[in-house]
Amino acid sequence: MQGSFITLEGIEGAGKSTCMAEVRQVLETAGKAILETREPGGTPLGEDLRQLLLGHRHTGMHEDTELLLMFAARAEHLQQKILPALRSGKWVLCDRFTDASYAYQGGGRGMDTRRIAELETWVQGDVRPHLTLLMDLPVEQGLERAGRRSSPDRFESEALEFFERVRQAYLEIARQDPGRVKIIDASRPLQEVRARIRAVMESFLEQQDND
Amino acid sequence: MQGSFITLEGIEGAGKSTCMAEVRQVLETAGKAILETREPGGTPLGEDLRQLLLGHRHTGMHEDTELLLMFAARAEHLQQKILPALRSGKWVLCDRFTDASYAYQGGGRGMDTRRIAELETWVQGDVRPHLTLLMDLPVEQGLERAGRRSSPDRFESEALEFFERVRQAYLEIARQDPGRVKIIDASRPLQEVRARIRAVMESFLEQQDND
Repeated sequence: MQGSFITLEGIEGAGKSTCMAEVRQVLETAGKAILETREPGGTPLGEDLRQLLLGHRHTGMHEDTELLLMFAARAEHLQQKILPALRSGKWVLCDRFTDASYAYQGGGRGMDTRRIAELETWVQGDVRPHLTLLMDLPVEQGLERAGRRSSPDRFESEALEFFERVRQAYLEIARQDPGRVKIIDASRPLQEVRARIRAVMESFLEQQDND
Repeated sequence: MQGSFITLEGIEGAGKSTCMAEVRQVLETAGKAILETREPGGTPLGEDLRQLLLGHRHTGMHEDTELLLMFAARAEHLQQKILPALRSGKWVLCDRFTDASYAYQGGGRGMDTRRIAELETWVQGDVRPHLTLLMDLPVEQGLERAGRRSSPDRFESEALEFFERVRQAYLEIARQDPGRVKIIDASRPLQEVRARIRAVMESFLEQQDND
């Protein structure tokens, strides 16, 4: 595999779009070819599944079903889009990946994380992101920002405590895997956040060049 | 669990509808409450997934994706419909279940059956059908019968060799698990096939009464 696989994570309203734009700019400046994508979705089938997952049509879905659909979309995304791009030397920037399953289904809904890990291995083998930027900020602040944007989807309608558990699960992942996951304090002023993202990216690029 | 879980399996055109009608009649005569259902599908979400799986919109789907979607529909079906019915004392008759994944994805597409077994355990724990009727007949005969009925779906468009592998995989399951899986020779005249189904069901009912 030649390209690097970078994922962006964080709760609603944490500024992943801002982060994506900044990461893209740093990589373009460095002359990297980029594939920008998102989960769940990223393929025509994935987008159909995204509708099933985020829409209001199937709100009573069992948690096992939800997780299997997430991983079905992920399998398609990985096999048809992410892996071919990485093999062709592209850098892949993905808005959410498996950390989101641990955070939302594990942290948020309280699913056994060992069951999530089983599907992760089933779908991904040993493929993991090389770098993850975790946009972190207090839940109230994130929801306020998200609320200003559009009507809440099914996940955004959940209680504040749910998102607090999601945030804590994300932070725990960062504590467990500090080499891969870099926390960006998204509650800081925009210019500061951007500067921190650039610093993380430049350090990662330097490290890649030295490998 | 109080009810019994009975599944019907077989290639296209093997006469599963005939079998379903006969099984239903025997159970109704015995005074059993019945839930009749089918896979993939059986729930509103499952029917949506059935459309994704059997339709022509996503023909290039990766085999991992296909299997995960099958098991997502199965998880929903099992948790929301099959297990509650069994717990309430109903007998569940299901047109296809996990044996079909082993036969179609394992036998037909050549997927590693260990990977199928991993998802089976993930989704079902130790839930397995109590009785499976395998409608068996030569592939050409089955496809001819199926072809007379309606335009072929995506699976039915596959080559003859594919269905031959599916048939052999089904027969192998029956050889491995003869206590659960009863082979019905569906190439015999209709009255004979029906008599054989009745005999299998009556023997199963007797066994249940003795337990």
